Amino acid sequence: MRKWECVLSPDEGEPVGIELAGGRGPFVIVCEHASATLPRSMGDMGLSEEALRSHIAWDPGALAVARLLSQQFDSPLVFQKFSRLVYDCNRPPESSAAMPMKSEIYTVPANENVDGAERLARTRALYRPFHSAVSTLIDERTGAGLATSLITVHSFTPVYFGKPRAVEVGILHDADARFADDILSAAASGNRHDVRRNEPYGPADGVTHSLILHGISRGIPNVMIEVRNDLIADQTGQGVMAGYLSELIAAAIGQQDKNNKTFVNVRSHQN
Amino acid sequence: MRKWECVLSPDEGEPVGIELAGGRGPFVIVCEHASATLPRSMGDMGLSEEALRSHIAWDPGALAVARLLSQQFDSPLVFQKFSRLVYDCNRPPESSAAMPMKSEIYTVPANENVDGAERLARTRALYRPFHSAVSTLIDERTGAGLATSLITVHSFTPVYFGKPRAVEVGILHDADARFADDILSAAASGNRHDVRRNEPYGPADGVTHSLILHGISRGIPNVMIEVRNDLIADQTGQGVMAGYLSELIAAAIGQQDKNNKTFVNVRSHQN
Repeated sequence: MRKWECVLSPDEGEPVGIELAGGRGPFVIVCEHASATLPRSMGDMGLSEEALRSHIAWDPGALAVARLLSQQFDSPLVFQKFSRLVYDCNRPPESSAAMPMKSEIYTVPANENVDGAERLARTRALYRPFHSAVSTLIDERTGAGLATSLITVHSFTPVYFGKPRAVEVGILHDADARFADDILSAAASGNRHDVRRNEPYGPADGVTHSLILHGISRGIPNVMIEVRNDLIADQTGQGVMAGYLSELIAAAIGQQDKNNKTFVNVRSHQN
Repeated sequence: MRKWECVLSPDEGEPVGIELAGGRGPFVIVCEHASATLPRSMGDMGLSEEALRSHIAWDPGALAVARLLSQQFDSPLVFQKFSRLVYDCNRPPESSAAMPMKSEIYTVPANENVDGAERLARTRALYRPFHSAVSTLIDERTGAGLATSLITVHSFTPVYFGKPRAVEVGILHDADARFADDILSAAASGNRHDVRRNEPYGPADGVTHSLILHGISRGIPNVMIEVRNDLIADQTGQGVMAGYLSELIAAAIGQQDKNNKTFVNVRSHQN
């Protein structure tokens, strides 16, 4: 059986995209599943054209919405430039879902025999640079006196294992629900969309890795936004959804302490 | 007022110590408060000799115990080579306790006017290399097919704000209590020491940063061990305590699934 090896050529560029790095707005916006691009070394990963264009390879529309939010709030955006089929940057290296052998109805041939060396190669090529970029960016903002809240932007498929999903927007959180609570409160005051907490999946499904790594570990507010991808399939839909999310987010930060401090995790030194 | 600036000279070496990097045992052992050494650029930080030798500068005895555990279990040890007064590597850059202005009864003059540039300089010099080293090490172990559980080793002062502490060993955890539960069960079957859960402080005090960053984010078992420092003030005490902790830890890993998998955080891919 063929052994697939991920090697990024220098001409394929950095795996991490950063926009508005110097934006002084209150957020860092992260998009782990921004791209369906495969490193050349991975060929087609044994998948059909259809599969490689589908939601198993990326989150369609998510980058466009994330970018609009980034611009709206003058806040940095960090996104992954390669497909989550090679490495899903919202999963730790220990997770089988980081390089899934199966995704929904598709078997992923290139992930069926990932040995330890290949796991480490992909971790080094895609995962570690991505999360180092996010960490470095938040460090720099903290140094510049800018308080940061973390927003990750995703999309989900309207039909999963043949079953339609009614939820339109998921507001996901792990142990720290502050930001999600405020967004959900804002959503409840209108009824433009079907917005739900921790749907269509939640922390028990292992989807809050980036929130834990960059939000909870630092004590900064954090939320994961999931949009049903049929609503953001084109520019019009993306613009409408980004506008709607901007309203919710703006209302949510209006709820936050007006005297919000840069160093939010203030606690006494323990000895 | 003097502005203190942390600059590490090349001859002061790397801020991170790593021992038994290739150890194939089941743990990565982390010691954030291993050293009372100050970078030369920080002078005496405005503190007395007595303060600089005290528990506010480091966790006395913790490195010695951590090293014995590392050797006992053939497991890598990562430790910080500079004092937590400059940067407390068990706190994120956003936390005021990362560079405490006050620690117990002592005011820390060098930390009274830390501006953003200095905060970033210390983050870059001490915090980021330390945690990058831990991340890289666990990545490599995962690539080598070695399952990792995380143990952080600390000590606490027997008298805090004038009040004696009866607890001798604290077994601390955050949201993931698996490893701590098993150690506490083992401790309960003997009565050699006063061992307590989340004492003399716990997750609400912000002391579980490393556990969240490297343990919970990866889905790997993790625990923070706190030993009262009068029990590990000399080699004899350190050896006795390391022996005791080794027994608890060995019993705890005996409790873990015999079919323990390398990729512990196995979950389906969500779309």
